[in-house]
Amino acid sequence: MTEDERSPILCHMANNDQVLDCTFAALADPTRRAIVARLCQGEAPVGELARPFSIGLPTLLKHIRVLEDGGLVTTRKAGRVRTCTLVPDVLRCADAWLRAHIDVWESRLDRLEAHLHQLKKKDLR
Amino acid sequence: MTEDERSPILCHMANNDQVLDCTFAALADPTRRAIVARLCQGEAPVGELARPFSIGLPTLLKHIRVLEDGGLVTTRKAGRVRTCTLVPDVLRCADAWLRAHIDVWESRLDRLEAHLHQLKKKDLR
Repeated sequence: MTEDERSPILCHMANNDQVLDCTFAALADPTRRAIVARLCQGEAPVGELARPFSIGLPTLLKHIRVLEDGGLVTTRKAGRVRTCTLVPDVLRCADAWLRAHIDVWESRLDRLEAHLHQLKKKDLR
Repeated sequence: MTEDERSPILCHMANNDQVLDCTFAALADPTRRAIVARLCQGEAPVGELARPFSIGLPTLLKHIRVLEDGGLVTTRKAGRVRTCTLVPDVLRCADAWLRAHIDVWESRLDRLEAHLHQLKKKDLR
């Protein structure tokens, strides 16, 4: 049995901006999101990942390569079977970016609301 | 004063997949993420958004158009000033997708951990 373990390129990326560029670009496609969704339930061989899609295996392999290059997925080959595994840290990194910025927006709205409330109270006196 | 209010294309999108395609593609660029980060603090005229970047105004306007087409930003023109405003619902939609899938992964890990714990307990008996 030969093993061809591919490490994610995450560790080679110069900074967080590059990680986010690759992660968001990888997620900007419904087939790739469906692959990520399936891998959240556990690792899967490429043959199983191909089943729900009406696309050829070469196209599917291209999508898997984009996910691998984005650091979202690792693959290993045992004999003739290539198995894909999710790297959840990259999803968490993208989620942290979104959450942090949504929080900034929501804090601003809360402050505006509090300010309006104060103005209203002064107006009623 | 003339007003040229542009509505987000979100409402014209056929389904959630198209929203996610556009949102993730729009976020796959550091300049566009920096614009979104700035707009989380409140609306801003294009001139102010241009200041931190060493890019020409036409390039910046192209980035703003991608954000507009992705439904992340709306713009309105008053006289010669075009002002950009964030549409936070699109960010929330992308965050909800990521969070839901990270949750699936984490629940699976929790179940595996509980299963291992049970096996260990049986082994100690």
